[in-house]
Amino acid sequence: MKQSILFTKTQKTDVKDEKSVNAKLLIKGGFIDKLCAGVYTFLPLGLLVLNKIANIIREEMNKIGGQEILMPALHPKEIWETTKRWKVKEMFKTKSQTDKEYGLGWTHEEVITPLLKKFVFSYKDLPVYVYQIQDKFRDEIRTKSGLLRGKEFIMKDLYSFHKSQNDLDKYYEKVKKAYFKIFQRVGLKKYTYLTLASGGTFSKYSHEFQTITEAGEDTIYICKKCKFSINKEIKTEFPTCPQCKSEDFEAKKAIEVGNIFKLGTKYSEAFDFTIKDKDGNEKIVIMGCYGIGLGRVMGTIVEIHNDESGILWPEEVAPFKYHLIPIYSGKASIDKKIKNIAEKIYSGQKFKNSVLYDDRLDVSVGEKLTDSDLIGLPIRIIISEKTIKQNSLEIKKRNEKKAKLVKLKNL
Amino acid sequence: MKQSILFTKTQKTDVKDEKSVNAKLLIKGGFIDKLCAGVYTFLPLGLLVLNKIANIIREEMNKIGGQEILMPALHPKEIWETTKRWKVKEMFKTKSQTDKEYGLGWTHEEVITPLLKKFVFSYKDLPVYVYQIQDKFRDEIRTKSGLLRGKEFIMKDLYSFHKSQNDLDKYYEKVKKAYFKIFQRVGLKKYTYLTLASGGTFSKYSHEFQTITEAGEDTIYICKKCKFSINKEIKTEFPTCPQCKSEDFEAKKAIEVGNIFKLGTKYSEAFDFTIKDKDGNEKIVIMGCYGIGLGRVMGTIVEIHNDESGILWPEEVAPFKYHLIPIYSGKASIDKKIKNIAEKIYSGQKFKNSVLYDDRLDVSVGEKLTDSDLIGLPIRIIISEKTIKQNSLEIKKRNEKKAKLVKLKNL
Repeated sequence: MKQSILFTKTQKTDVKDEKSVNAKLLIKGGFIDKLCAGVYTFLPLGLLVLNKIANIIREEMNKIGGQEILMPALHPKEIWETTKRWKVKEMFKTKSQTDKEYGLGWTHEEVITPLLKKFVFSYKDLPVYVYQIQDKFRDEIRTKSGLLRGKEFIMKDLYSFHKSQNDLDKYYEKVKKAYFKIFQRVGLKKYTYLTLASGGTFSKYSHEFQTITEAGEDTIYICKKCKFSINKEIKTEFPTCPQCKSEDFEAKKAIEVGNIFKLGTKYSEAFDFTIKDKDGNEKIVIMGCYGIGLGRVMGTIVEIHNDESGILWPEEVAPFKYHLIPIYSGKASIDKKIKNIAEKIYSGQKFKNSVLYDDRLDVSVGEKLTDSDLIGLPIRIIISEKTIKQNSLEIKKRNEKKAKLVKLKNL
Repeated sequence: MKQSILFTKTQKTDVKDEKSVNAKLLIKGGFIDKLCAGVYTFLPLGLLVLNKIANIIREEMNKIGGQEILMPALHPKEIWETTKRWKVKEMFKTKSQTDKEYGLGWTHEEVITPLLKKFVFSYKDLPVYVYQIQDKFRDEIRTKSGLLRGKEFIMKDLYSFHKSQNDLDKYYEKVKKAYFKIFQRVGLKKYTYLTLASGGTFSKYSHEFQTITEAGEDTIYICKKCKFSINKEIKTEFPTCPQCKSEDFEAKKAIEVGNIFKLGTKYSEAFDFTIKDKDGNEKIVIMGCYGIGLGRVMGTIVEIHNDESGILWPEEVAPFKYHLIPIYSGKASIDKKIKNIAEKIYSGQKFKNSVLYDDRLDVSVGEKLTDSDLIGLPIRIIISEKTIKQNSLEIKKRNEKKAKLVKLKNL
């Protein structure tokens, strides 16, 4: 993409009306825009990141047999009354002109359970794994943390349906692995701990994926010996590590980037979702659910991967891999060469869709480099009088201090 | 995709609680599911179609310089009061726990205009073209037509910003061509007419893209001589064709699959969105907006392309190009060959992601063929005892009566 065409611009000064690092940097760099508290627009660069995260999640969900669908956000009141969750105060409610009441979906057990009931009748139809990547709404009171906690947010929610507890248990372990694969690919694995947490209304315990950073709103206790961790909310129940019995914990602030629940039969019972078992008896279906917030992952990446100059995007989620910056000398014959090389790289097959090309003419070198650090693409390529004199390009990784010259012919 | 894994099933009997052909066929075939009136889930096959339509639109929007973003659905009341549209009765409204009021977006002029104002200051920053593919909400009273008119629906909305009327006029013509390209690729061009219509609250006139079918809720008058057409709502203003002066019109029912508006300065004035012109004067920005409903396009395709047995998907939007159906003979050695060929085709690079493989074992041949016609993929491939005896496959196009044998080695 040519930077001269991109309609967004970076901001020269720090963003004042945001408290969180992720919102400050993402707004300053032109990735997102705030419409109101907890509600953001994804601008072209931000949408590219969001889509890369979505595709990583999609690939890993497909690998564990997930079938993608897209459920609506507008839910009739009745389905939420069935599970006695209509009164949840964080659910936005609305009414039609004909006085029909709706809730805006913040999770989809109430939609997916009766939906699957229409297609699953026998033990032969199970297991089934269904997920979506979809826009959710939640009336959050605290909205000070940018993309980490929004009133509207995009989530991947996977639901699994099983004929036995044992089958659920096995799939649950598979999802754990898939989640760590996702967090590895988006650049968070090193900082992310599997954490025992309360099961909420679902079950006694659940597991969270907690990424440690000072920006986190949760506190987790990490076992120093085996790295298992426990959410503060249930820590008193576990004076010793349930895995290795150590008493030595370290408390850390963390962001919950994913969570997985064994739902059991709570929702299948509410919707009377049964199957015919092998022996011909009716049997209640057993469920699991597994969430990841895409915006929250994006915000967490920024909280973790930043320095005083801006963002450092991990390669798999960067909007582009390369930032191509020609630096003109003011000497016509040299600048012609610089431009030729830049255009050749930009239009080459090898770099297709992976280059942000700073072709802006009315911007100083200093500004270009400042923007480049702020936007934070993994690799910066500079072409200048100095580099072409050595038939080279200057290559610098965003996370390294030193640049190096690479011969043009080696490109 | 293996059909044995697909969690959805076709329905054996006609869908009773839907009136429209598109909803009946799409539900029967397992493409969509109805949550409540005007609100649908896209199931795996339906989501594939929706994504293909989205990608066609995306490609054509990118070709005319569109930059993709993603705006939120939850809009603060204030922006809608600025344009005096808060009272629009089709807008769903909701309130937070802290009594803040929101509307659910059914269009995005109120978001995009102040957003662009943050980045566009000078005539040098224009023109800009920004679009999104996003979930919209509209409190429709009539919801009898399946995907043609929903309370929740996915739309592509493009907004253009110009420094002069002339510049808008030129881009408007470009969008017209891009729209016809889209309708050509999704299989609707032959039936789709550029139609003069009222400008609503925007301007005196606008243009609609109307696809003629008995399922349409609009009536258009097509000039028999030059094919220009006029929406019934403004026909009395045009006793003769504005293009060729003929008086000879034909009235047809039609579905509005797209619309384009010259917004002029209505929204830029409301939000005081001006630029510095060449001569240093402040000048108001001129806008256009351009919509296509993706679900509506999908529903219209089904209304146009169906027969008594089911859907006939145009190739570019079909969930898969091929339906691969092995028909077993009951003779072990022959069935082994049949299965080998089927698996080879399914796993071959050539057919990657383009085959729905009916590997179901507990389904009769008759059922498989009925399902195949209902689902409506463009090309059916049958492998049977008969075909392998001639070292062949049977290939049949969904829109042709006759099948033909193709030698395996020619594959």
